[in-house]
Amino acid sequence: MSSPLLNSLIDRLRVLPSVGPRSARRMALHLLQSDRKGGLKLAQALSDAMDKINNCNTCQNFTEQSECSICSNTERNIAQICVVENPADVDVMELAADYDGRYFVMMGRLSPIDGVGPVELGLDKLFQLIRDKQVKEVILAFGTSVESDATAHYIADQLVNDDLVVTRLAAGLPSGGELEAISGNTLKQAFSSRQSFSIEP
Amino acid sequence: MSSPLLNSLIDRLRVLPSVGPRSARRMALHLLQSDRKGGLKLAQALSDAMDKINNCNTCQNFTEQSECSICSNTERNIAQICVVENPADVDVMELAADYDGRYFVMMGRLSPIDGVGPVELGLDKLFQLIRDKQVKEVILAFGTSVESDATAHYIADQLVNDDLVVTRLAAGLPSGGELEAISGNTLKQAFSSRQSFSIEP
Repeated sequence: MSSPLLNSLIDRLRVLPSVGPRSARRMALHLLQSDRKGGLKLAQALSDAMDKINNCNTCQNFTEQSECSICSNTERNIAQICVVENPADVDVMELAADYDGRYFVMMGRLSPIDGVGPVELGLDKLFQLIRDKQVKEVILAFGTSVESDATAHYIADQLVNDDLVVTRLAAGLPSGGELEAISGNTLKQAFSSRQSFSIEP
Repeated sequence: MSSPLLNSLIDRLRVLPSVGPRSARRMALHLLQSDRKGGLKLAQALSDAMDKINNCNTCQNFTEQSECSICSNTERNIAQICVVENPADVDVMELAADYDGRYFVMMGRLSPIDGVGPVELGLDKLFQLIRDKQVKEVILAFGTSVESDATAHYIADQLVNDDLVVTRLAAGLPSGGELEAISGNTLKQAFSSRQSFSIEP
């Protein structure tokens, strides 16, 4: 490109996940040609977010306050705490599940080869929180990867002597799923967790 | 999301082409979790580019000077002018073709239904330039879409009485292409433009 500023913009756009040199160029040219105002607003939103968003003192989720809107909502049930891997999981839980307890956002999952241990996930803070608030149920809302399984087992193990219930999201057939379209592992899981089924009289 | 600044960032990221709500969220969370410095640098690069990049007075390409580095390079041949649709085309021409003339960047192509006519492309400026600089060859480096064809015909038509040659990039088989992998239209074009082939003795 004949403009150093344009080259620098294309280069910087590549900090975005799955943006390679070609899409970075397309993005930069699109903004310059058709949406400079949008580009300036994006610049402002980026610098505001990077500067002002921190982690909630209680649940670790992103917020610009010292405590996030869920943790500071006194109408939510403090006897339940739902542990999730990422901020996005809080959103999907809020949208889909009928849940009015609190959350704890680990910002990752145990992965010793990447140097992510209990300390990096803030699990000591989670255990403290559970004991301080006299939580009755800890819901592990994780996916089904090997690392998520390991993380779930670690947490459950640490809480084994506490007077509370640890639950995990059910594994089984996805809603609307046809048997033939479902993986063998899912079917195996759904079969071994089969539940009694009776028709109301 | 529990943070208005985060919501606003996700929203603003959608000015980027082919970024939907899910990728915008992934981008925002990635920057917050793993690359805040990169996010701040991107914000700076964006605002610099949007504020300071304008169009070259001569060829319309993006530059932060009044004239781009190619137009102000006195060693380039002013008798040839290569007309391209987009700034990116200048880059690919510079990399691939053995060309040392000037360019003219239309920033689009004729498309009456989108309100893009000769004025929007700056074609009056192109014709003025051709006449002022006594250009000998106008190379139309366009793709092969219907709009590009129409644009090429329009430009050639306007220059029919000028003392110069108008050329267009050759159409035919792509380099390394196997016949069976090539579209019927490409093959038809390559066949009708077949060239005499003789082995040097």
